[in-house]
Amino acid sequence: MTKFDFTNHSHRRLNLLTNSYVLCSPHRAKRPWQGAKEELKKNTLPEYDPQCYLCPGNIRATGDSNPKYESTYIFPNDYPAVRLDQPDYVSEIKDDANADSETDKLESRLLVTQGVKGKCFVICFSPNHSLTLPIMPIRDIISVIDTWQKLYLEVKSQSLSGEAPYRYLQIFENKGFAMGCSNPHPHGQAWCLDQIPTEVSHELTNMNEYFKKNESHLLGDYVKLELVKKERIVLQNDSFLVVVPYWALWPFETLLISKNHLHSIEEFNEYEKADLASIMKKLTTKYDNLFNTSFPYSMGIHQAPFNCSKHDHDNSWFHMHFYPPLLRSATVKKFCVGFEMLGEAQRDLTSEQAAARLVDLNGEAHYSQKLSDEK
Amino acid sequence: MTKFDFTNHSHRRLNLLTNSYVLCSPHRAKRPWQGAKEELKKNTLPEYDPQCYLCPGNIRATGDSNPKYESTYIFPNDYPAVRLDQPDYVSEIKDDANADSETDKLESRLLVTQGVKGKCFVICFSPNHSLTLPIMPIRDIISVIDTWQKLYLEVKSQSLSGEAPYRYLQIFENKGFAMGCSNPHPHGQAWCLDQIPTEVSHELTNMNEYFKKNESHLLGDYVKLELVKKERIVLQNDSFLVVVPYWALWPFETLLISKNHLHSIEEFNEYEKADLASIMKKLTTKYDNLFNTSFPYSMGIHQAPFNCSKHDHDNSWFHMHFYPPLLRSATVKKFCVGFEMLGEAQRDLTSEQAAARLVDLNGEAHYSQKLSDEK
Ligand SMILES: [Zn+2]
Ligand SMILES: [Zn+2]
Repeated sequence: MTKFDFTNHSHRRLNLLTNSYVLCSPHRAKRPWQGAKEELKKNTLPEYDPQCYLCPGNIRATGDSNPKYESTYIFPNDYPAVRLDQPDYVSEIKDDANADSETDKLESRLLVTQGVKGKCFVICFSPNHSLTLPIMPIRDIISVIDTWQKLYLEVKSQSLSGEAPYRYLQIFENKGFAMGCSNPHPHGQAWCLDQIPTEVSHELTNMNEYFKKNESHLLGDYVKLELVKKERIVLQNDSFLVVVPYWALWPFETLLISKNHLHSIEEFNEYEKADLASIMKKLTTKYDNLFNTSFPYSMGIHQAPFNCSKHDHDNSWFHMHFYPPLLRSATVKKFCVGFEMLGEAQRDLTSEQAAARLVDLNGEAHYSQKLSDEK
Repeated sequence: MTKFDFTNHSHRRLNLLTNSYVLCSPHRAKRPWQGAKEELKKNTLPEYDPQCYLCPGNIRATGDSNPKYESTYIFPNDYPAVRLDQPDYVSEIKDDANADSETDKLESRLLVTQGVKGKCFVICFSPNHSLTLPIMPIRDIISVIDTWQKLYLEVKSQSLSGEAPYRYLQIFENKGFAMGCSNPHPHGQAWCLDQIPTEVSHELTNMNEYFKKNESHLLGDYVKLELVKKERIVLQNDSFLVVVPYWALWPFETLLISKNHLHSIEEFNEYEKADLASIMKKLTTKYDNLFNTSFPYSMGIHQAPFNCSKHDHDNSWFHMHFYPPLLRSATVKKFCVGFEMLGEAQRDLTSEQAAARLVDLNGEAHYSQKLSDEK
């Protein structure tokens, strides 16, 4: 009988962080790669756009105006998903044991609700409207990381002093029209929340269980293993490793993990900040060079909550997820629909194949540079 | 202090089926509803399209040709995600206890893999290229349900006889360009799998735990509660209830649940089949009337696996999920990106507000009928 072949036979891989499987159907990716025949499009964005609500000096929809900022600029989101000024949620339903009626009893079991308070920030990465992470100088990316670190420290100290009820800071960037992001000005977001979001909470549960079982850290062990296997590594430097994770869902999904046990960005020293800036620049350059386009993605940081159990803190391990939707070209997106919504995440290309493609790409010279050079 | 207001204050609701929270930010949906000002577009699809690989008599890409079918037509998918003819997956890694090296040990813990075998079918709902469920006659929808039931019985019997290793039949429909479905011919899919998909498996786990704790069924109790609360009911008849679930993620997501404890479509009698056809027709008519468009969605059936534990069978409860992506108009989709990918599902409109809008819509007369009437 033929041997099981990971590039030809359907299998599923367990995402240990979320405890969900991903179905991999590699025989459907068998056709030869058509190659990136994309036209090299010049970046036509102006450095300043008078219509952009994020550009320095401009007036936002709420009437507030941006200062003439010259580096990273952080301000509260004008349309936040969560706010601090709302009453506490107190359930009117008695809990199961004290419920009067059958309906009260069912309601307490089935309609489970928590109030959520918090604050949402927008972080402009640069005053220059036309930039993106891969074409920003490393020292400006360091200033973004400095802003993230400063915010983490502030939010944590407000939480510990009791000034605000925060338990988690979710830092993320949503980039590109394909992601529903209509403003190309380089920016990210940071949400401070008094609840630990589901994804983070599931990851913590699984990391805690891993530690209990193996007395070592899930992501620490994973870094060790990937460094030996060398099949899914996209980039690495002294401080960080970037892999297409074994259980990747998105075609070119990557996981950036600190090699040492850093619980959060709070613990980063100067070298680690520079290493993170450098590896993020290289990774996003590779992404852009994949289809000669400004590559869309959602990316974000997972790290230690505040005001949490010792387990949750001790087992947190700084990492970042990059979730890009593109599949075959600058315009062909993966759709997570049908079987994926009802049954299970599914992909054709294997993680190893995706990693090989990313490895082959230039991580130093951005495709738009070639265009300038040709002029 | 002001009272907590579900239509103004952020909160999160637990999806009991998946054990994940959904963050609800209702203050962001406060602006008055702009109303469906959509133009009524006439259905311009022909009843037969010579280019369609699903129309009767046409030749498919693989060279096979469709018979001149006159009712529902089922055939094996030409590009299946899973196949029966592949070797069993046997891990070459020794398990933790017998692992030779540190790397073997880590690999057995971290790279968790299962082979997946199965078969994928396409089910044409009708020979008429221009139809969709809401504009099909009820008797033709009954014939789709008959096909589903017949397939379930066949697949189950192959599984029990050992002829095929199936453990689950995932029936679903992915409809509309917005869902990446390029062929408008009315059709769905059915995948037979030798593994229980993650979503279903998580639901079973949570339904099992609910039963252990409460000695009653999660969805049975939920039907009871929604019938008393009357805040999220969209439709009901003798056999089925359709609600916008308390924990809905998609703006107009609905959950269709059998009122009696039916484990799977196997147990449906004639009346239940007619009731399901009728309520599906009404629900999809309401959907189409919401934005005067052929409403895109992924929908599917969750029901009992075969060859499973007694718990898994006993606690299964027939239900269907409808996941439509549209938010505010025929063209404005919800994007699940950024915070939703990294943190938690999020919505603005509450489930109760969405249900109220769906209740208000006509479920009997399709908007395209009005067009014909006006002629
Ligand atoms: Zn994470
Ligand atoms: Zn379900």
